[in-house]
Amino acid sequence: MSGNSIGKIFRVTTFGESHGPGIGAVIEGCPPGIRLEPDDFAAPMARRRPVGRPSDTARREQDRVEILSGVFEGITTGAPINLYISNRDVDSQPYEILRRSFRPGHGDFTYFKKYHHFDFRGGGRYSARETAARVAAAVVADKILRPQGVKVTAYTMEIGGMRAEELKWDTIEQSPFFCPDPDASIKMEQVVKEAAAEGDSVGGVAEVRVWGCPAGLGEPVFDKLDAELAKAIFSIGTVKAVEIGDGFGAARLRGSQNNDPIEPDGFSTNHAGGILAGISTGDEIVIRVGLKPIPSIKIEQDTIDRAGRPMKIKLDGRYDICPLPRALPVLEAMVKIVLADHYLRQGSYRQEDLQC
Amino acid sequence: MSGNSIGKIFRVTTFGESHGPGIGAVIEGCPPGIRLEPDDFAAPMARRRPVGRPSDTARREQDRVEILSGVFEGITTGAPINLYISNRDVDSQPYEILRRSFRPGHGDFTYFKKYHHFDFRGGGRYSARETAARVAAAVVADKILRPQGVKVTAYTMEIGGMRAEELKWDTIEQSPFFCPDPDASIKMEQVVKEAAAEGDSVGGVAEVRVWGCPAGLGEPVFDKLDAELAKAIFSIGTVKAVEIGDGFGAARLRGSQNNDPIEPDGFSTNHAGGILAGISTGDEIVIRVGLKPIPSIKIEQDTIDRAGRPMKIKLDGRYDICPLPRALPVLEAMVKIVLADHYLRQGSYRQEDLQC
Amino acid sequence: MSGNSIGKIFRVTTFGESHGPGIGAVIEGCPPGIRLEPDDFAAPMARRRPVGRPSDTARREQDRVEILSGVFEGITTGAPINLYISNRDVDSQPYEILRRSFRPGHGDFTYFKKYHHFDFRGGGRYSARETAARVAAAVVADKILRPQGVKVTAYTMEIGGMRAEELKWDTIEQSPFFCPDPDASIKMEQVVKEAAAEGDSVGGVAEVRVWGCPAGLGEPVFDKLDAELAKAIFSIGTVKAVEIGDGFGAARLRGSQNNDPIEPDGFSTNHAGGILAGISTGDEIVIRVGLKPIPSIKIEQDTIDRAGRPMKIKLDGRYDICPLPRALPVLEAMVKIVLADHYLRQGSYRQEDLQC
Amino acid sequence: MSGNSIGKIFRVTTFGESHGPGIGAVIEGCPPGIRLEPDDFAAPMARRRPVGRPSDTARREQDRVEILSGVFEGITTGAPINLYISNRDVDSQPYEILRRSFRPGHGDFTYFKKYHHFDFRGGGRYSARETAARVAAAVVADKILRPQGVKVTAYTMEIGGMRAEELKWDTIEQSPFFCPDPDASIKMEQVVKEAAAEGDSVGGVAEVRVWGCPAGLGEPVFDKLDAELAKAIFSIGTVKAVEIGDGFGAARLRGSQNNDPIEPDGFSTNHAGGILAGISTGDEIVIRVGLKPIPSIKIEQDTIDRAGRPMKIKLDGRYDICPLPRALPVLEAMVKIVLADHYLRQGSYRQEDLQC
Repeated sequence: MSGNSIGKIFRVTTFGESHGPGIGAVIEGCPPGIRLEPDDFAAPMARRRPVGRPSDTARREQDRVEILSGVFEGITTGAPINLYISNRDVDSQPYEILRRSFRPGHGDFTYFKKYHHFDFRGGGRYSARETAARVAAAVVADKILRPQGVKVTAYTMEIGGMRAEELKWDTIEQSPFFCPDPDASIKMEQVVKEAAAEGDSVGGVAEVRVWGCPAGLGEPVFDKLDAELAKAIFSIGTVKAVEIGDGFGAARLRGSQNNDPIEPDGFSTNHAGGILAGISTGDEIVIRVGLKPIPSIKIEQDTIDRAGRPMKIKLDGRYDICPLPRALPVLEAMVKIVLADHYLRQGSYRQEDLQC
Repeated sequence: MSGNSIGKIFRVTTFGESHGPGIGAVIEGCPPGIRLEPDDFAAPMARRRPVGRPSDTARREQDRVEILSGVFEGITTGAPINLYISNRDVDSQPYEILRRSFRPGHGDFTYFKKYHHFDFRGGGRYSARETAARVAAAVVADKILRPQGVKVTAYTMEIGGMRAEELKWDTIEQSPFFCPDPDASIKMEQVVKEAAAEGDSVGGVAEVRVWGCPAGLGEPVFDKLDAELAKAIFSIGTVKAVEIGDGFGAARLRGSQNNDPIEPDGFSTNHAGGILAGISTGDEIVIRVGLKPIPSIKIEQDTIDRAGRPMKIKLDGRYDICPLPRALPVLEAMVKIVLADHYLRQGSYRQEDLQC
Repeated sequence: MSGNSIGKIFRVTTFGESHGPGIGAVIEGCPPGIRLEPDDFAAPMARRRPVGRPSDTARREQDRVEILSGVFEGITTGAPINLYISNRDVDSQPYEILRRSFRPGHGDFTYFKKYHHFDFRGGGRYSARETAARVAAAVVADKILRPQGVKVTAYTMEIGGMRAEELKWDTIEQSPFFCPDPDASIKMEQVVKEAAAEGDSVGGVAEVRVWGCPAGLGEPVFDKLDAELAKAIFSIGTVKAVEIGDGFGAARLRGSQNNDPIEPDGFSTNHAGGILAGISTGDEIVIRVGLKPIPSIKIEQDTIDRAGRPMKIKLDGRYDICPLPRALPVLEAMVKIVLADHYLRQGSYRQEDLQC
Repeated sequence: MSGNSIGKIFRVTTFGESHGPGIGAVIEGCPPGIRLEPDDFAAPMARRRPVGRPSDTARREQDRVEILSGVFEGITTGAPINLYISNRDVDSQPYEILRRSFRPGHGDFTYFKKYHHFDFRGGGRYSARETAARVAAAVVADKILRPQGVKVTAYTMEIGGMRAEELKWDTIEQSPFFCPDPDASIKMEQVVKEAAAEGDSVGGVAEVRVWGCPAGLGEPVFDKLDAELAKAIFSIGTVKAVEIGDGFGAARLRGSQNNDPIEPDGFSTNHAGGILAGISTGDEIVIRVGLKPIPSIKIEQDTIDRAGRPMKIKLDGRYDICPLPRALPVLEAMVKIVLADHYLRQGSYRQEDLQC
């Protein structure tokens, strides 16, 4: 049973492969009456695009989003919204070595085991290219969240072991990694360049904050808000760790330290990261995410071919060096999609309509 | 829209509150023809039960599982299986202070915000009692996994800052915390006793390993195996962090270090923790989980009452001191439920049946 | 993948077999804050019970509904509601002939083909007994619909070829078949008695009307209201035909006759039966249902045994003679469950909450 | 919550409006390894197209299906398959009268009530144009069914009161209505022409037969095969009635007449229409469908405008006169989609994989 959809009321299904005609998302459950135009997608899509940072692939992606359905006279109708992005700068000449062998750290081996095939043209379905469809879908999610005052921001906390020590929000946009600590950002740039020079790659840590989330979102006991956020974030290819609030830090605290006291105007601390018992508290939601280094490296590695025979592989192509900062808009997208879904799911609880 | 179910083919819905008549689980999608008897539940349920360890609540739970449906002559029929556990040692005299106020670190506040009520009798739906139903459901999941050679084990890695440095598998059963390092286990016992003496509580870190999981489980791009495991684990009340394989550690490695080389007989390292591109590799699955300290403490805390007025609260009752070891069988249960579901979901991909 | 649940937001899962410990329903998605007590179930359950009418089985069913979860202090909490009905007057001595052979017209053969077993103790899962759980679940659905002014009524239009020609609503309760035509009701009684005397059974036609359904329920293009009602009704064992509005009659009309003209105060005719393009119009919903004769007859029939050898079977037990009137509360139940689900699904479309 | 998807494992979501850029379907859950090429769609799509029969609209639809995703080197990959059909001969000049008023018998009124808008350009989402996407999706369903020997055929039994009395299968293709009775077909042609001459329309009755369906498909107690088929068929715009097997006829039989005796080589009669207790028997599946007359007529009708004021409306455009024969491939499509889904759902029951 396929797992290409996320969300129960605001439901996003992505489709498409990196080297096929195009990729996109079908959104079901978007309420009618929301203004939505092709121009709404330009800025968010641009943020995900490689733009010549030291960490970026050289691939150029146009990423123009077409609205194929669900909008009439610039307004959503309640019908499924199909957002489509043609693939353009596609170089799909089948490298013989990729057709025959499995790249370490990639899905080649597991896709082959599962589906009895794999797409040697840059990963196909498991290429990071698929995440462009998620960013497009989140533009619609944002249309539901924004009027409620909900704002989602992701930024870089660590790259290649270099950590942000300060959170200077107003410097984020000046950092090529959207890192809130300018000094750390310079060091990050350095380690990325060093890794690139050696044909290697680096990992990093991102943080996502949600401001303005109302209390009450999340559906225990399984579709808790933190559980759903964790799933959505782990569905991004390079993610290997997720913490909510203090995360592993909380495991080292005592109850008297970790419990957030409640005061008439809210919680006086936020160790919980804005979620208690799987439901948003109304406080800031704080999520920390560990991303592994990009697996595509220009260093020789041991692998096997389709017949199971050992061989060496050394990749040569256009790859990112670090999953950050390009994963940031995808992280924001996944958080927005989950929040929009839960905002609408929460709708079925309104007592005033039940008059009882 | 309610979130009380997990799984798409092997689907578990739990029901019940800590102080109602009973709790249980309805399992849909269990294949017919599996032997299942009330005695199968005794040992697993016993593992979750408080048994007088320093970390345990004084509450006594009988936890006898009745099979109300779905089994005929000791064999599953394919119909829904209802597993029911009566609540017995229930002390539900409504403490006036709990009726009026929100316990810090608990779901009282968020449930009240969401549902306009909360169950002051020990949490009701968001009590850890609900997890007994999950452990019962996992007994059925295990019946699907066991014949495939899949084995799931959870153990304690850290409590109150005391860490296991060694993994001596054969000592686990001797540790009251199921900790594989006997020296660390002694230190853990000490910190738990200290916290208890002060009316406080501690958190900890658990690890879950899956042996024998076949390659190919997981349904990209959203229902990836790691994403689904993370969600299932985050749905346990005290969980605040999840790592797969090296987790945050991978974020500090280079690609050349983190990529697991592939050899003819498998992967030569396992930084990935047994999952690549959201699909099991066939290697050991390794998950690390951070659990916050139990929020119920016997120390005075600041909170508010239902009317929003500040007040002090000091709990006095039967509470665990540490979420471990009682969370271990629940961690195992959630992992088993996810794996059984994905094992059956994988069934729809078999090409041999399609003859094409 | 199991099909034991119905509804997407108001979701009902039934469990249990006719000769097991009990049957019941788990309801997910019921909003919190609704008054619900065991006494609410007494009258609806009584309507479904055999009471000595010429058409009724001699089996006595107690059908006391226990609320195992989801209600606290007499009010729904938003958690799953488990309604449980113990089986009492159960006579499960395994008749050897039933264990060995397939009863014509029953699910024995198809269950055996599908699940490799069948429940020879009166059908088990496919016994009409399961429908008691549906009637219980519909009591909760009714709690959502009633405050909106929605009323659902089923009645008998035809039995054994005897048709109601008039709709005298106030005579329904006096007819043992809840038939609105007193003269027809007398003839129906006669044909039922004749069939019973011969060990045979008869079929019939029921009609369901919904008054007060607001316009706007139904979710095109697949979960249209008529499609969902048809599915729910066809899920009742003896149903073989469903019409909405004029049904097959509409197929013989011209467009100019069948189109319902729209006037300022509503539709001037109702050939559509209250549903247009899969969405309720606000007019009366009219559904006609064809039910086959009860398959359990005391006349010798040809069948085969488990090994495929021909044999004769002649049943001898406690059976209904006609599916009506006992199917009527089940028809009402299924319609109520669908309407409650769609009423809540409609909730996610409210523009006022989106402020756009 | 949106209802634009059908199926649980083989899941089809349609998107698109009659006057937007295009329509299509996203198919999730199609197994990998199936040959699928654009040419596979040509013949099935042609059958649905208007071709100048007396009953056809004058609109010309090109209906070339593009495969946007899910296929690599002509083989399905297991990823979502997006089938896209551009809209071409689109005449969307907004007739002022349609913008202002509700056409009787159409979804204008109910869509406006539900979504607070309606698509005056020929219905938009509720146009019959959407069914082209269903026919395309069924081509993929057929790739799953065909190798199992399953064949689905729909044909016309009645138009405007003229009935087929004989089933001469080999004459079907010669009838413009795919009617198996040549004499009846000539009379049908006559009544369609008469209605057309008067600006009116007619309804009809279709029948669908499935040959080669294996025993065991269908998922009680709610997703029974007949229930799912009924839902799928009622989701077609003009359907008002569905019978399985003898349908309403069975309601007039006695049990001794209606029960199909079982013999060593199968059932000796088929009153049940190939489905017992919601599961296929292995016998021929027989479904009869009543379709209302096309609501678009060139005769003046009473209606209201958006402000609720009475007005007259007389349509003038390119409309079908009768829903048949163009609904036949759509009926076949819906039956195929349901059967493919249930064939894959059945896969999760295979005991041989469970080794117990």
